[in-house]
Amino acid sequence: MNYETIAQAVLKRIFIELEASGRHVHVTKEQALALFGHPLTPKRPLSQPGQYLANERVTVMGPKGEFQNVAVLGPERKAGQVELSMTDARTLGISAPVRQSGDIENTPGATLRGEMGEVQLPQGVIVAKRHIHITPEDAEKMGVTDKQIVKLQTYTSRPLVFDDVVVRVSPDFQSYVHLDYDEANACGFQTGDLGRIVCERS
Amino acid sequence: MNYETIAQAVLKRIFIELEASGRHVHVTKEQALALFGHPLTPKRPLSQPGQYLANERVTVMGPKGEFQNVAVLGPERKAGQVELSMTDARTLGISAPVRQSGDIENTPGATLRGEMGEVQLPQGVIVAKRHIHITPEDAEKMGVTDKQIVKLQTYTSRPLVFDDVVVRVSPDFQSYVHLDYDEANACGFQTGDLGRIVCERS
Repeated sequence: MNYETIAQAVLKRIFIELEASGRHVHVTKEQALALFGHPLTPKRPLSQPGQYLANERVTVMGPKGEFQNVAVLGPERKAGQVELSMTDARTLGISAPVRQSGDIENTPGATLRGEMGEVQLPQGVIVAKRHIHITPEDAEKMGVTDKQIVKLQTYTSRPLVFDDVVVRVSPDFQSYVHLDYDEANACGFQTGDLGRIVCERS
Repeated sequence: MNYETIAQAVLKRIFIELEASGRHVHVTKEQALALFGHPLTPKRPLSQPGQYLANERVTVMGPKGEFQNVAVLGPERKAGQVELSMTDARTLGISAPVRQSGDIENTPGATLRGEMGEVQLPQGVIVAKRHIHITPEDAEKMGVTDKQIVKLQTYTSRPLVFDDVVVRVSPDFQSYVHLDYDEANACGFQTGDLGRIVCERS
């Protein structure tokens, strides 16, 4: 092993790469048909295996404003969902709670507009709770388990320690920390920046 | 002393209230005249003694967008300055660095528009570095000194520890932590929320 290989091995044992998620939408197959006249089509893969950015885009409308050209992520899901930052939610005039993806009971709705039609989401507008996707191997190295709440130090231009970060372990994941853009900006995130779990080992 | 008085005394020894600063502008007397035809007029006082929100508002224009109805803070200063969040800076298309207020050498400019005219700022667009205004009395209680860099735990709905927070001590201050809206949203700030300095004592 050369020094670079060793350095990479050490880095991967200690650090997790940060990613910032912009505002985006998930839709069901039925909603995709109503919005676009056809199922979602992949434009490029995302960091999480099987997930993709779709070619299709939507307008998200709230009582106080709208965002055009919002990313739609595939594949389709069981329920429609809109993930915003708090800044975005204020712009739309929607009081969106901080929730884990998929946990949309009793959340506000919004209207989606695609090139073929509109869909009224009765619920599903959330601010995504910051979280760590992690493989079982990396979770073991870092001493964390699924659903554990940890603190995460960011190595960024405006460093901080995020508390209350939920760990999600799955062999289907790549290891990444997911922040929204409020969080990314608050820590001065730039692509490639790293974080480190700083809680005690479980 | 009753319990409430004791509780308040303990709170003030340990915690500092958080404040979120929205985007705003500082102008010189000459710039105020050019923009509004008269000096700034106070609408209401701010938390820092002598500082006020002006009745006057400006439009801030960048290459990619503009914000209308932006707050102007008085009194007038020696140099014009625009304080934005990173989210705001992106909207305007201005690459604003994180700086302390007043430290505007080699920063980008912007155009301001008031009801009487426009002013071109050659420089002064910054993302305000998060900071703590603190009285000498509170600084002594909390064991911090002017210009010290500390960590600050937030007691908020999305708790985190801000690293690299600069302390500014002055008898002219009220003790408050100042965050921008990216930072405020990242920690789930609501009015009245508290923070605590968690560095070692100096």
